[in-house]
Amino acid sequence: MNQPDDFYWMNKALEQAASVMFVTTPNPRVGCVIVKNRQLLGQGATQKAGGPHAEVCAIHNAQDNGHDLAGSTFYVTLEPCSHYGKTPPCVDAIIAARPARVVIAMADPNPLVGGRGIARLQEAGIEVHCNLLAEQALALNPGFISRMLTGRPWVWTKLASSLDGRMALYNGQSQWITSAAARADGHYWRARSCVVLTGLGTVLHDDPLMTVRSLATPRQPVRAIIDSRFAVPETARIFNGEPVWVFTTHLDEAKAARLLAKNVQLIVMPEKNGHVDLDAVLAWMGKQQINEVHVEAGPGLNGALLQAGLLDELLLYMAPKILGDAHGLFRLPVLNELDQAYQFDFFETQTFAPDLRLRARLQNRWDTLLNSVVHK
Amino acid sequence: MNQPDDFYWMNKALEQAASVMFVTTPNPRVGCVIVKNRQLLGQGATQKAGGPHAEVCAIHNAQDNGHDLAGSTFYVTLEPCSHYGKTPPCVDAIIAARPARVVIAMADPNPLVGGRGIARLQEAGIEVHCNLLAEQALALNPGFISRMLTGRPWVWTKLASSLDGRMALYNGQSQWITSAAARADGHYWRARSCVVLTGLGTVLHDDPLMTVRSLATPRQPVRAIIDSRFAVPETARIFNGEPVWVFTTHLDEAKAARLLAKNVQLIVMPEKNGHVDLDAVLAWMGKQQINEVHVEAGPGLNGALLQAGLLDELLLYMAPKILGDAHGLFRLPVLNELDQAYQFDFFETQTFAPDLRLRARLQNRWDTLLNSVVHK
Repeated sequence: MNQPDDFYWMNKALEQAASVMFVTTPNPRVGCVIVKNRQLLGQGATQKAGGPHAEVCAIHNAQDNGHDLAGSTFYVTLEPCSHYGKTPPCVDAIIAARPARVVIAMADPNPLVGGRGIARLQEAGIEVHCNLLAEQALALNPGFISRMLTGRPWVWTKLASSLDGRMALYNGQSQWITSAAARADGHYWRARSCVVLTGLGTVLHDDPLMTVRSLATPRQPVRAIIDSRFAVPETARIFNGEPVWVFTTHLDEAKAARLLAKNVQLIVMPEKNGHVDLDAVLAWMGKQQINEVHVEAGPGLNGALLQAGLLDELLLYMAPKILGDAHGLFRLPVLNELDQAYQFDFFETQTFAPDLRLRARLQNRWDTLLNSVVHK
Repeated sequence: MNQPDDFYWMNKALEQAASVMFVTTPNPRVGCVIVKNRQLLGQGATQKAGGPHAEVCAIHNAQDNGHDLAGSTFYVTLEPCSHYGKTPPCVDAIIAARPARVVIAMADPNPLVGGRGIARLQEAGIEVHCNLLAEQALALNPGFISRMLTGRPWVWTKLASSLDGRMALYNGQSQWITSAAARADGHYWRARSCVVLTGLGTVLHDDPLMTVRSLATPRQPVRAIIDSRFAVPETARIFNGEPVWVFTTHLDEAKAARLLAKNVQLIVMPEKNGHVDLDAVLAWMGKQQINEVHVEAGPGLNGALLQAGLLDELLLYMAPKILGDAHGLFRLPVLNELDQAYQFDFFETQTFAPDLRLRARLQNRWDTLLNSVVHK
């Protein structure tokens, strides 16, 4: 049963998890706070892969301050692990601390955990309460959960448009439709992703770096290009010496070797309808433990991903201006019926003055993930 | 100087004004509450044109309850009138009640009032405080203020689009992109307007009634059609016996006479670029004491109004779906520079699940109106 302060403390644990947003991949972002008699004894968040998990950090934090954790309550944003990975199982550390209660936001669909963490705690006589703020916890780790459940990352696309849905003038001009504040926020999303994915068209047209720049981050995501015919110019600025993946159906060994010297990995993919099979790209990324993919591309790649059912989330920055006839956001076959429209759900609106940021996601995909983390 | 409860009571007065949203035109919606010793003594709102104004209603309400208003505070959303119109000046009624203080949300730019109301109260030894929640008060009466200041109504256009800015498929299908909840809210906006304005294209394509249906209203707005060549079919459903205005440059006397029998008034307007001069239409409406115009039209008329600088506000219902290549919201000449974009400002976002309603307005127009109602 919930106790009155449970929401308050679980929110603190979620804040801990959010504080390591750019750090933990391929592991999930997890936060933990330990409370006794309404007092915070310790808190922590999962560190870089290989480092300690949130529960262990919080226990150390509490012990460093001389607290006895017997009879305490642990708030954890993800079911504690019960298996040996790079670190020993967190459930053992929790049980050793002899808490009275453990409150867990979401269960771990990782087949190596799969409810075993919860069961181990209960077997040790600890009261376990699950599913508190599960949706908020999932929102911090949709990629990790998607990968555990379906083998592929969570994919969002960053879009910038006018109020009437145009992303560039017919002459190609698109810099800038949205404000500096909106563009800076876009870098936050690059920073939390594992891969920034674009198309050949964007490389040819904008010659972007696609790096995280407007905020500090301990790691840069891998940049990746969908380039079915392997036509990318070797002089593109994106080849800056840091890792780039190029997905193609067309192997040119000499060009691939020259690019490899620039830290560019060519990945030959199966073909589908004359282009790189995007399903295969995401499955391949899943195998590389890629949790979150940030797409920043033109109407071609966005349309192809949408048609393939691979855009899980839209991150649309909308400027309060009207452009009239100009390039749209998605290149798609012309529809003949309104009920063929691609359906999303708005779930968040925020102002980045003078622009708005609208977020929408595929309801079924989200519900599937959420269902997988709710402990029955 | 503000007193601690001023915001609270002025909000009550604004609620009173909002309660007569569909009633007062061509007069402004005005609310009044009378307070003494933190107790509400009386409240009222302006009635149908020719009926009592808000201040008099509130005084009667208080007196009916046996209250002595000496030493009280009046909260009024608009500067009280000081001239004889259809009713005697409200300032006289207020002065007779002997309040200690009058708090006024916005001044009246009506040349017949023009600060005289405030001055009369001060001359009577009453403390007057102005400009409290002026922007909220203006939002209840942008049309009246626009007409007083510039001679023309305030114009908003109701738009419905997909997330990617499309209002109909190429085959014309547009019913329905947005949800029943969004469409019902659209009727609120029709109801508060004085004129519902559409174009010939919409009449030909959708054959709409353009009446207020999904909510109760004491009056229907006039429906109006921009029809430069006077090509509207006489059998259109919009000609239902209630008043319709048809603006044209092309007089066909026989057709006009037949339509007159259906309560349709033909108004011949000057021509501009081969079409009805839209500036002239709005000036003509201003002379008819039209405060607010609700546009519900296709990309042609919306584009023409936008180009003419006559769209003051956008009311955009956006469905979380993607349509790809399809009809856009505004037909405009293709732009060559991003800084030629038509600039608005978002000022409100609301959910009409599953859709969003975004409101944006022309900043300069709004600032001009607001500046005119701030008492210096």
